[in-house]
Amino acid sequence: MVLDQGRPAHQSISEWLSSLIAAEHLSPGFRLPAERGFAQELGVSRMTLRQALDSLLQEGAIVRAVGARGGSFVAEARVPVDISNLMGLSKQLLRSVHSASSRVLTAETVSADPSVTEALQLPDKAPVHRIHRLRFAASTPVVLEDSFLPADLFPGFLEKNLDGSLYGLMRRDYELSPFSSVEELNPVIISVQDAELLEIRAASAVLGVKRTGLARDGRPVEYSRDLIRTDRLKIVVSGRAE
Amino acid sequence: MVLDQGRPAHQSISEWLSSLIAAEHLSPGFRLPAERGFAQELGVSRMTLRQALDSLLQEGAIVRAVGARGGSFVAEARVPVDISNLMGLSKQLLRSVHSASSRVLTAETVSADPSVTEALQLPDKAPVHRIHRLRFAASTPVVLEDSFLPADLFPGFLEKNLDGSLYGLMRRDYELSPFSSVEELNPVIISVQDAELLEIRAASAVLGVKRTGLARDGRPVEYSRDLIRTDRLKIVVSGRAE
Repeated sequence: MVLDQGRPAHQSISEWLSSLIAAEHLSPGFRLPAERGFAQELGVSRMTLRQALDSLLQEGAIVRAVGARGGSFVAEARVPVDISNLMGLSKQLLRSVHSASSRVLTAETVSADPSVTEALQLPDKAPVHRIHRLRFAASTPVVLEDSFLPADLFPGFLEKNLDGSLYGLMRRDYELSPFSSVEELNPVIISVQDAELLEIRAASAVLGVKRTGLARDGRPVEYSRDLIRTDRLKIVVSGRAE
Repeated sequence: MVLDQGRPAHQSISEWLSSLIAAEHLSPGFRLPAERGFAQELGVSRMTLRQALDSLLQEGAIVRAVGARGGSFVAEARVPVDISNLMGLSKQLLRSVHSASSRVLTAETVSADPSVTEALQLPDKAPVHRIHRLRFAASTPVVLEDSFLPADLFPGFLEKNLDGSLYGLMRRDYELSPFSSVEELNPVIISVQDAELLEIRAASAVLGVKRTGLARDGRPVEYSRDLIRTDRLKIVVSGRAE
């Protein structure tokens, strides 16, 4: 690796390591050298190396373990998920991992709060089904999902099996599922409570997605607020000139 | 505002305030009541109120000022930008604000690092034009953009005026601009150096977007790594069932 004049050393290092990982020169589970010796070897300060590793950690390229057998390890490859097509999350996960599941945290009919009524174009305090779920890729929690459906459009929805694809249920049982969507993206510093559910450190950064799904006739049928672990999922958007 | 049984009080408060702002019951520049009194009025602890305000701050709904005239204020509306269509940023900004500009930080031809050659499908260390720019909406820095173009496809590019739309230049002068794109999204904790350029606090969360732009024939013509202030831009993705 050659340090580039024009840019910070930590950036050159993280990109170099990142490219070795991407090219599979370093395999998942590979243990990086201990920091002190590694920094010396690279001819940089330990702080610079640490900065490089922090950015790889944030990208999900490496994971860290503490304790006697601790250190930095090359992470498993992230599972690709395209949020610009409307294929449900379960279906997308199952293309890459052997199992995708959900744990329902709450499922109840509530009076919608103002941000929900606004998104779903409902009157004040209209009844909505709220389904709060933790989604897993294999056995790792990857998305914390808070979905709201207009209760009037989906009678009896909460009596169904809510572990699988909600889009599938909406389509099969009500012939009403999202045909188009608008998603707002925000980086979010996670709360202590949500960090525990997602099994990540508190104050980690996750990707927040607020999605409004519209039926073919333009009616809003779903509003959802998701928190996504981008260290395990690789979130992509595909665009095309109009 | 009624506190909802099922969910944390800070969330109810932030959504309530957020809806008042969205509905323009509270205008940009409005000063929220001082925290101590406001918390009492709402019947919650000051810490709970603080948590609610932190999340509004993160969303860009409010801004904070310190000092004698300090406090929390309702923010200006965010500028909407759709990253799933390939309309350039300048064009999108100009629909909402009176001026959009760029400051070129560096423009040079360099040997591509591995992540760039991989994205652009170039041989090792191939020459690329690197254009590092700070983008402004009105006078606020909103995006820090690091773009790479294959030097062989764009001879003489760096001699052109790089303050405006790069896509425009690529199209007009080379008949080669992105027709489709793939973007990878990551929440990023910003470095001290980049925070200074974007005029935000160090360690703020920003949205990182790595974009590869492909010409109509599928050749990669642009790779870019952007850091976006989502407190000033409202980043959306529009999706449609295939």
